[in-house]
Amino acid sequence: MRRTDSQNAAPREITATVGALATPALLLDKDRLDRNLARLSSRMAAAGVVLRPHMKTAKSIEVAQRAYPSGPGPITVSTLAEAEYFAQYGFRDVTYAVGVAPHTAERAMRLRKAGVDLKVLLDSPEQAAMLGTAARAAGVTPSAFIEIDCDGHRGGLTATDPKLIAVAAALAEAGVTLAGILTHAGESYSLCSSDALVAAAENERAVAVAAAETLRAAGHECPVVSVGSTPTAHFAEGLTGVTEMRAGVYMFFDLVMHGVGVCTTDDIAISVLATVIGTKPEKGWILVDAGWMALSRDRGTAAQRVDQGYGLVCDLSGQLYPNLIVAQASQEHGILAIRSRSAAALPHIPIGAKVRILPNHACATASQHELYNVISAGSDAIEAQWPRMRGW
Amino acid sequence: MRRTDSQNAAPREITATVGALATPALLLDKDRLDRNLARLSSRMAAAGVVLRPHMKTAKSIEVAQRAYPSGPGPITVSTLAEAEYFAQYGFRDVTYAVGVAPHTAERAMRLRKAGVDLKVLLDSPEQAAMLGTAARAAGVTPSAFIEIDCDGHRGGLTATDPKLIAVAAALAEAGVTLAGILTHAGESYSLCSSDALVAAAENERAVAVAAAETLRAAGHECPVVSVGSTPTAHFAEGLTGVTEMRAGVYMFFDLVMHGVGVCTTDDIAISVLATVIGTKPEKGWILVDAGWMALSRDRGTAAQRVDQGYGLVCDLSGQLYPNLIVAQASQEHGILAIRSRSAAALPHIPIGAKVRILPNHACATASQHELYNVISAGSDAIEAQWPRMRGW
Repeated sequence: MRRTDSQNAAPREITATVGALATPALLLDKDRLDRNLARLSSRMAAAGVVLRPHMKTAKSIEVAQRAYPSGPGPITVSTLAEAEYFAQYGFRDVTYAVGVAPHTAERAMRLRKAGVDLKVLLDSPEQAAMLGTAARAAGVTPSAFIEIDCDGHRGGLTATDPKLIAVAAALAEAGVTLAGILTHAGESYSLCSSDALVAAAENERAVAVAAAETLRAAGHECPVVSVGSTPTAHFAEGLTGVTEMRAGVYMFFDLVMHGVGVCTTDDIAISVLATVIGTKPEKGWILVDAGWMALSRDRGTAAQRVDQGYGLVCDLSGQLYPNLIVAQASQEHGILAIRSRSAAALPHIPIGAKVRILPNHACATASQHELYNVISAGSDAIEAQWPRMRGW
Repeated sequence: MRRTDSQNAAPREITATVGALATPALLLDKDRLDRNLARLSSRMAAAGVVLRPHMKTAKSIEVAQRAYPSGPGPITVSTLAEAEYFAQYGFRDVTYAVGVAPHTAERAMRLRKAGVDLKVLLDSPEQAAMLGTAARAAGVTPSAFIEIDCDGHRGGLTATDPKLIAVAAALAEAGVTLAGILTHAGESYSLCSSDALVAAAENERAVAVAAAETLRAAGHECPVVSVGSTPTAHFAEGLTGVTEMRAGVYMFFDLVMHGVGVCTTDDIAISVLATVIGTKPEKGWILVDAGWMALSRDRGTAAQRVDQGYGLVCDLSGQLYPNLIVAQASQEHGILAIRSRSAAALPHIPIGAKVRILPNHACATASQHELYNVISAGSDAIEAQWPRMRGW
């Protein structure tokens, strides 16, 4: 079996089984990936809403092609490096969902000049003017979303903010096409009951639609009403007035999403393979060679009802050890221990044995690795290695 | 000015000033780096102790050459990928300071076969036997340190553990040379008074020397007594019996080390350059394009007396804004705010303006970047770009 490499480097022989892989290493279960992709795409198809997957989680052309087996479709990105990377593989309908600044406006306009239908995001007249300047310099017509704040999470304007009309006017004055409005229910990550998630999804929808209606009432066309977060995408009971859904972590899922209640641990498609390098039974510890460099420093579950430490530990086949977590992490060391207030016994895992660790936050853990070692459920074979892109 | 690239890629033109650099980007002040390097090397020279810098922080040949301007010297590494990387540039006296497992033993022995004086670390008879097996297969004589636990931080044996003699005997039986003992006062990172740091350094020294004496009394040669952590390296008042000091983060320093009391903010050599992409004065927020992907998820100062959020914010010239921190971070967004319980006013920093963020943990923040943009104090020029290695 040979390495697939999107960068067209020379293929090379790779380890053929998980058990023989050097550690730490990132595993991706493609059956779980496919199931997660199908779950949300069929849900959005039933709702008649365009799904625009966020590629910031996977950052992999092979994963994008898995989401779009019949050819490139609309995507969301978090960096212009992602936009440039996916564009070279034919993904040309791209929304850059981070507020635009002068240097990114110029770079985004170069991509538009190259034929990429790249939409940018902003929430101020200053950004509209900057974008207009960059677009005139590049000789292109830009397209931008106005960012709406639906839950106080981050940036954007509230649906009732008078600045909303001022920004739309500034876009018109700067010669920028208004693509529509875009919002993200980021606060939904802190919820854990289905009632609260259904309510967060309805709030995200209602605020987005109200903002679009405000713009339309002022005479601005607002074709796209874009919403999205993995929790609200899976709990929305109605999407009337919404035209587009964005989500990213749903492809892989993780322990934070499990804590929110969007997935089971059996849905989590990535795990970090590690090797036992020491045992301290007198302390209730097992040391492994996966520390924060392999797992990331993300402690997203610390704020949830069940704190998973730096991750939940499974055996080589992916079966969970009861209540065994990565209790501590330094750069290249992880300390496995039974979670506090559990009566479970520390399993005997000898030095040299391998374990698999389910991550708190898939976006953060995957970003610590160069590539995905692709596996299928119930098989020890590594079927491919899919590179990840990185940087800005 | 052209890019220096240790990987011998074709040089390329790079941005010549910090102000014109695309963000987020990692900056390295080489004057601060040189001052930090000189501070510890002169301290160790005065103590008559070999300094074996830990390269896990910088992961850069240019930084290693800065530490050793007159040619390669002894180094410590946290991965075998680091050992292989630095060896190709002539650094052949290397200690791999993470417990050895079967797959790393084989790879380490291949490096020894290639002429690298690579020492490994272990604390069990099982590891000694594994190492012996790998060494016989490679036809080399291995050298190993026994890991000593001086403060309960992680792995290793206590100086009084009867297993200490058993491991030394297992090494002899397996044909492994005992390089010496190695310990790391990892708990010193949680201290913040000079008295406590002096005591931690003396404990680290005393435990290391006691372990070495126990081995010697049992007839085992124990030539090297290796200790080290950045805090204890700087606070040790005596190093009698110690032959070698290891430290890594001292090269760059960071806000955690500032909280411990080892450095001032003016000693911190790396910072993340970011651009303002939004302002929310009504919330007391300024949004920048550096989130956890650029800063890391490390929140090491959360456990200290002063919580620095995801970092302290400086202007483009490196001057601190009073009490302005990165209060929240998502993947590509940072939210700047005045720290709680401060009366300081939110500064006006317009969209498009650049700031510099001092990191909680230099090892974690630097690992999020491909290269260092090298600057000098008081200059806006980027003098070089130094690549970082990564992976395992």
